[in-house]
Amino acid sequence: MKIIITGSTGFVAKSLIQTLINEGHEIHAIIRSHSNTEGIADGTKFYVDNGDNQALLDYFNLVKPNGVIHLASLFLAQHNTEDIQSLITSNITFGTRLLEASTKSYVKWFINTGTFWQHYENEAYNPVNLYAATKQAFQDIAKFYYETNDINFVTIKLNDTFGEGDTRKKVFNLWQNMIKNNETLGMSPGDQIIDISYIDDIVEAYTLMISHLKNDKNFSYKGDAFSVSSSERMPLKDLAKVFEEATKSTLNINWGERPYRDREVMIPWDKGHPVLGWKQKTFLLNAIIKLKENTNG
Amino acid sequence: MKIIITGSTGFVAKSLIQTLINEGHEIHAIIRSHSNTEGIADGTKFYVDNGDNQALLDYFNLVKPNGVIHLASLFLAQHNTEDIQSLITSNITFGTRLLEASTKSYVKWFINTGTFWQHYENEAYNPVNLYAATKQAFQDIAKFYYETNDINFVTIKLNDTFGEGDTRKKVFNLWQNMIKNNETLGMSPGDQIIDISYIDDIVEAYTLMISHLKNDKNFSYKGDAFSVSSSERMPLKDLAKVFEEATKSTLNINWGERPYRDREVMIPWDKGHPVLGWKQKTFLLNAIIKLKENTNG
Repeated sequence: MKIIITGSTGFVAKSLIQTLINEGHEIHAIIRSHSNTEGIADGTKFYVDNGDNQALLDYFNLVKPNGVIHLASLFLAQHNTEDIQSLITSNITFGTRLLEASTKSYVKWFINTGTFWQHYENEAYNPVNLYAATKQAFQDIAKFYYETNDINFVTIKLNDTFGEGDTRKKVFNLWQNMIKNNETLGMSPGDQIIDISYIDDIVEAYTLMISHLKNDKNFSYKGDAFSVSSSERMPLKDLAKVFEEATKSTLNINWGERPYRDREVMIPWDKGHPVLGWKQKTFLLNAIIKLKENTNG
Repeated sequence: MKIIITGSTGFVAKSLIQTLINEGHEIHAIIRSHSNTEGIADGTKFYVDNGDNQALLDYFNLVKPNGVIHLASLFLAQHNTEDIQSLITSNITFGTRLLEASTKSYVKWFINTGTFWQHYENEAYNPVNLYAATKQAFQDIAKFYYETNDINFVTIKLNDTFGEGDTRKKVFNLWQNMIKNNETLGMSPGDQIIDISYIDDIVEAYTLMISHLKNDKNFSYKGDAFSVSSSERMPLKDLAKVFEEATKSTLNINWGERPYRDREVMIPWDKGHPVLGWKQKTFLLNAIIKLKENTNG
């Protein structure tokens, strides 16, 4: 299949692209002129988008992709006043332009990426931050396109993710550095539940979704959302213990030295539906051991 | 009170501003550099927005408005590919910038304007067109602001409106021109239900809402939406008869000569809640007679 992917410079998309290329698919990545394509699988074809809608449509008509996987987004845990325009451009306008080009070039399916943070306090919709609000807003826009065109639009909602090649300043990288540098770290009280999934499981959610969309030709998901959620949800404090066990190290954390942040998610959304047939295959202890081996090796 | 208003060059805002100025309020209108301020009530103060978020916040801090009435929007019944950016900038980004400035300057209330077209086929959400989708998207962005700040945000959803000074190419203006020029017009079969309200009733919905927001200080609407809906909903064909009666003329319409448009709204949304205490005061026959007198005079 020919698949157009966005967000190819990000952690999840890089792994997904590698898998799809290994499976023999033709991958077209939409990037920006300043994008760093280092680490994106060999064989990926690139299109540099400069914001021109007609040029984007011409490109879609040329490639004639079977489907689109939209992983690009601007993530900001908290925004500043000057971030508004770029948050909307990245998380709403770009996706709208993709849907316009997709529907006008008769693309059959479109996988969008959402976030558990659209569901603060487990509500049907309550955004943790402006980032999550822009994700919801894009789904609203998408509804216009899938109601008025023959395109199968679905959203996969992700929470925390981890794995080899993840350079984001997230908890496992933080802890690995602590141990390496023999540091002590002040953290929140640590009672917030963490729902984190290993990259291979995330990638499988997308590849499974693709096969449903490809094979269930007469089935319309009508904008349905699916989630990737761990079967090992646990408080951050307990996750630290798993990490210690996997790495055979001790974390010097002063729990409670810092406050929880504003709108800290204490219990992540648990009302999502997994992609049909998806099951967590990699468990935390093994994944962290694997991660450590690959990172050190 | 000091009130900031957007969309002041539009039909509804012009009438509303005149009423609010007559009531003694201080009106600050946000316009663009190319806006034509002709016909906006004397005494209105203007601020030219050039897209700078910090300048907008400085302006809010200077004015210290009690509330904001957001009527600006880009309306397009059908969009073209090149319209996407301007639809999003006008209907999502501008409102988001207003909410950012409002919450940062401790504005107490914000009245947003939505459309019945967010409810195609009477659904909780199904946009008739991309315009309506951007309206919904903005409400979802707004949720972030009213969930995380002490601001009372409400939406008033409008359907058709008419009255003196309305220069839009809508049905009554069309029919008046037909009669004046003794023309014959081909129209759709005419069975679509029309829900159209007279401008004075629309203005009253806003002034009533303002008084609720001002007086019910401890009450939070939490993003509630209210509607302005006519008690005289009727098929377009029947509306033509009322128009003929009011104007003592004959309309030469060939019903059925044109098809309905894509996603023609046959039955407008009827699940809205009117603003508390609001009742239609001007009835169609009288309003059209008044309109004709004032237009000819």
